[in-house]
Amino acid sequence: MAEEEQIMEPGSENVVLIGKKPAMNYVLAVVTQFNSGAKSVKVRARGNAISRAVDVAEISRNRFVTDARVDKIAINSEELANEDGTKSKVSAIEITLAR
Amino acid sequence: MAEEEQIMEPGSENVVLIGKKPAMNYVLAVVTQFNSGAKSVKVRARGNAISRAVDVAEISRNRFVTDARVDKIAINSEELANEDGTKSKVSAIEITLAR
Repeated sequence: MAEEEQIMEPGSENVVLIGKKPAMNYVLAVVTQFNSGAKSVKVRARGNAISRAVDVAEISRNRFVTDARVDKIAINSEELANEDGTKSKVSAIEITLAR
Repeated sequence: MAEEEQIMEPGSENVVLIGKKPAMNYVLAVVTQFNSGAKSVKVRARGNAISRAVDVAEISRNRFVTDARVDKIAINSEELANEDGTKSKVSAIEITLAR
């Protein structure tokens, strides 16, 4: 994960990690964070969830937090250890929405 | 497509459109364009192919065109007409690699 931290600023608050649930679940999390006073929210995903992360950012911005804009988008590669000890590379994205 | 063209500069050369084939097919296309003298290559995808677009950009940059960097990443929403006349929104990404 060291590689991720170089590019993506570790330990920052207001992060929504995208998994396999429907996009609207994560949109709700983004909207809730903005409504709680957050100035920016980071949407993060790895692998196949990357497409959903873009959906979440677009739906949040176009329908619910219309004064938010895409502040930054970063992509990188992370190395994950498999159960058998081998390593796989997986792509990741971080979309920062800000108002 | 009008919405796309506002954000993504229409008619530009050196575009690789990501579909359902394995990522390496598209990596080859990106590498070929750089080897033909292109200063920048745009990797575009919609919907589920967005994750693959990030893979293609990362693999191209890390393994084959190591002097290329991610110059710009844009996301947007496009409206597509379905066969029954209804419309669906789909997310899109454009990753510009430049050397």
